[in-house]
Amino acid sequence: MPDDLQLNQEGKLRHFLTIEGLDKSLLTEILDMAESFVGMSGQKVKKVPLLRGKTIVNLFFENSTRTRTTFELAAKRLSADVLSMSIATSSTSKGESLLDTIRNLQAMHVDMFVVRHAVSGAAHFIAQHTAPHISVINAGDGQHAHPTQAMLDMFTIRQIKKDFSNLRVAIIGDILHSRVARSQIQALNTLGVAEIRVIAPKTLLPAHVETLGVRVFHNLTEGLKDMDVIAMLRLQKERMSSALLPSESEYFKCFGLTEDKLKIAKPDAIVMHPGPINRGVEIDSKVADGPQSVILKQVSNGIAIRMAIMAMAMQKQGLA
Amino acid sequence: MPDDLQLNQEGKLRHFLTIEGLDKSLLTEILDMAESFVGMSGQKVKKVPLLRGKTIVNLFFENSTRTRTTFELAAKRLSADVLSMSIATSSTSKGESLLDTIRNLQAMHVDMFVVRHAVSGAAHFIAQHTAPHISVINAGDGQHAHPTQAMLDMFTIRQIKKDFSNLRVAIIGDILHSRVARSQIQALNTLGVAEIRVIAPKTLLPAHVETLGVRVFHNLTEGLKDMDVIAMLRLQKERMSSALLPSESEYFKCFGLTEDKLKIAKPDAIVMHPGPINRGVEIDSKVADGPQSVILKQVSNGIAIRMAIMAMAMQKQGLA
Amino acid sequence: MPDDLQLNQEGKLRHFLTIEGLDKSLLTEILDMAESFVGMSGQKVKKVPLLRGKTIVNLFFENSTRTRTTFELAAKRLSADVLSMSIATSSTSKGESLLDTIRNLQAMHVDMFVVRHAVSGAAHFIAQHTAPHISVINAGDGQHAHPTQAMLDMFTIRQIKKDFSNLRVAIIGDILHSRVARSQIQALNTLGVAEIRVIAPKTLLPAHVETLGVRVFHNLTEGLKDMDVIAMLRLQKERMSSALLPSESEYFKCFGLTEDKLKIAKPDAIVMHPGPINRGVEIDSKVADGPQSVILKQVSNGIAIRMAIMAMAMQKQGLA
Repeated sequence: MPDDLQLNQEGKLRHFLTIEGLDKSLLTEILDMAESFVGMSGQKVKKVPLLRGKTIVNLFFENSTRTRTTFELAAKRLSADVLSMSIATSSTSKGESLLDTIRNLQAMHVDMFVVRHAVSGAAHFIAQHTAPHISVINAGDGQHAHPTQAMLDMFTIRQIKKDFSNLRVAIIGDILHSRVARSQIQALNTLGVAEIRVIAPKTLLPAHVETLGVRVFHNLTEGLKDMDVIAMLRLQKERMSSALLPSESEYFKCFGLTEDKLKIAKPDAIVMHPGPINRGVEIDSKVADGPQSVILKQVSNGIAIRMAIMAMAMQKQGLA
Repeated sequence: MPDDLQLNQEGKLRHFLTIEGLDKSLLTEILDMAESFVGMSGQKVKKVPLLRGKTIVNLFFENSTRTRTTFELAAKRLSADVLSMSIATSSTSKGESLLDTIRNLQAMHVDMFVVRHAVSGAAHFIAQHTAPHISVINAGDGQHAHPTQAMLDMFTIRQIKKDFSNLRVAIIGDILHSRVARSQIQALNTLGVAEIRVIAPKTLLPAHVETLGVRVFHNLTEGLKDMDVIAMLRLQKERMSSALLPSESEYFKCFGLTEDKLKIAKPDAIVMHPGPINRGVEIDSKVADGPQSVILKQVSNGIAIRMAIMAMAMQKQGLA
Repeated sequence: MPDDLQLNQEGKLRHFLTIEGLDKSLLTEILDMAESFVGMSGQKVKKVPLLRGKTIVNLFFENSTRTRTTFELAAKRLSADVLSMSIATSSTSKGESLLDTIRNLQAMHVDMFVVRHAVSGAAHFIAQHTAPHISVINAGDGQHAHPTQAMLDMFTIRQIKKDFSNLRVAIIGDILHSRVARSQIQALNTLGVAEIRVIAPKTLLPAHVETLGVRVFHNLTEGLKDMDVIAMLRLQKERMSSALLPSESEYFKCFGLTEDKLKIAKPDAIVMHPGPINRGVEIDSKVADGPQSVILKQVSNGIAIRMAIMAMAMQKQGLA
């Protein structure tokens, strides 16, 4: 779904739906703006008046307390008014009805939708059908994209590794079903890393995954060699029962990241995970809580990145 | 339930429970104040500090995301603090227990209750039992009244038609069970329209409906003739199974508003609906989304009207 | 669970987990600060900017609309941003997983957790594992403690009786399972009342309850004699079925507070109850709504006490 829907005529961010189609300078602009918000967290008053009087609606068709919380905090720290709506997909199962919900909310003069939906393309669909003054942020749609997660990962990598150009990054786990992986690969390629590897059993890889610009490994030990960044994915336990995977312990034996396995990567490699962690399934607790883990740093950076993206998307309205 | 409970000794609004008993000048004052808030929606900072430091509690005993959202937005744009409570009626089924809930909340020094309840008279009951400094706004009680909906309808009519005195208005659908219709009829009569018609099958009309000051039609084609305003009602699908109505398609054939039917009314007639719409049941999508529809305008005006009513009810406390 | 976890090195409040271990001067400081907030409720703008830009998270693992509401109102009146999370215990049943939730939230730079949990010690556990800049307030943990409730009771007693030293206080009901009773007894002893009695059937008293510094009565008539303060407890109806108690009416006959029984206490005795009341089970409506009841005053004072405790716990961060 590549499109120019995301940018206005001056090339400024209008919606934030996918990494696809955004260029390096725009991604870098987001990272730089987030940088300016990171320092704020240590201040006594963690608020800026950038979006005062603006109304942001969290439209969560798929439940996710954690992601909703980070968007809500980000919006409040920008001084916006936030409305969080959990919408059972059942009541809006017809596209027509979803559109009626959107049209009604925009008639209430809201300024932004943050959309989470189990169906790929839902955020695009909403962005195509909203009034010009409204921005749509994709907070995860089906197996398609999770671009704010990818951007906070990029921010965390840059914070520690400074430069992308020499980095080798391995993404490990259920690539097939992961919107996070898809967005990470696009962002890493756009920012110009040296190499991206995906490490997964064959059953958890999309067909022709190489065409995304990655090298494929089915063996963790081989794949981890020389890596600077190790991006773990969350294993959806539902996959187990669907015959795509053997048992949890079997998976952990082959693809779980342990201290021993981690030693294969570069000594200063960092370990990332989008959370929530399945300890003992995709990652050992000693690694998750160990010195090379940047998992909680990712969470902190998630607020700053979302503040940056929200603020930038509002700027197209001549806000700042 | 006519009463003076709604006004203080100087004739100012104290509660807003029903249109009944309010005179033309007071309704006009509400419309005028809402006018001043409508312009605000286009501004960068959609907020006024009128109710800063006030606490408004949304007491929703009946679920309604849409109505709750408009009240929440209206309160936030007046800078009030809002607390939204969804209360399962089961836990407060005894009157005693409802009163305990109310007494506890008012002991917390809240300033306003916005009440939605499945039982007719619930908002009155609460208003009768609250402390003098608290205002109660009826956000819909049983089949009794929905006065803020009626006022946003009046606002929308005035916005387009300017003057009420020569208007002919038809209300179409399930008049029998509709709190919206009841409040609309009272408001239209008070504001002095030329004629009000109700158009419905006999099974969906209250006994002696003519005594409300309306003309009765059982045929849509006859009823629509010469109308300036067409107010559709939402059809509660539960009615179908209760033998009050034949099938949905049968109903649509007789009472559904289509483009063809609409041509019978005046060429500049407007079409209103309180939402959510049952497309293809009471109204055809081509009409709902067509040029004569003001349905989304109603939604926008709903925020301004609720801001006006909340602000006016607070003024009795010497606020402004 | 006595500990110094609650105080920082200068003896200032850092967490508020239990009354145990806090001295008279600190409890008095809390009461005095709450005093300054009580007056505010009558003002037009019921807000102070003390905690502007701070983020307070209500972490309610056990459902309690009433308590959550008072904390939310208290936080908003201090101008903090509030995030209320209802967390089903099931999803965090493993200690590890609870910790992950806590660690993630603190990575988002929140400043305070208000914790309600069905397991005794949960708030302590969280306090032991949070970052130094975060304060934890116990909003009720299992059968262990409910210290903010006890403090609002103390505040209410002092407001009316002025001095603690000559007071005789009876606590009536299910002492065995009551976190409220436990915290009340500690607070009353620390503030130095003349006598504390507990009045309950043997099945509802903990073993060796005398060691807490109370006199034990199994007979309401005897126990109420000469009392200045009567603190009723809420009867958990679940106890009935668990064979600890006979029927509700039997309990009411022996331990229910009626107007007749109340006459046995001092004529100016006050009646307290933490709410919600079971009318006709532990207390007669005539007493609950009568002139000696201070139950709604307790609710009002609950906001001021929670504002005071939140503000003081934040001061350790050099806020004020």
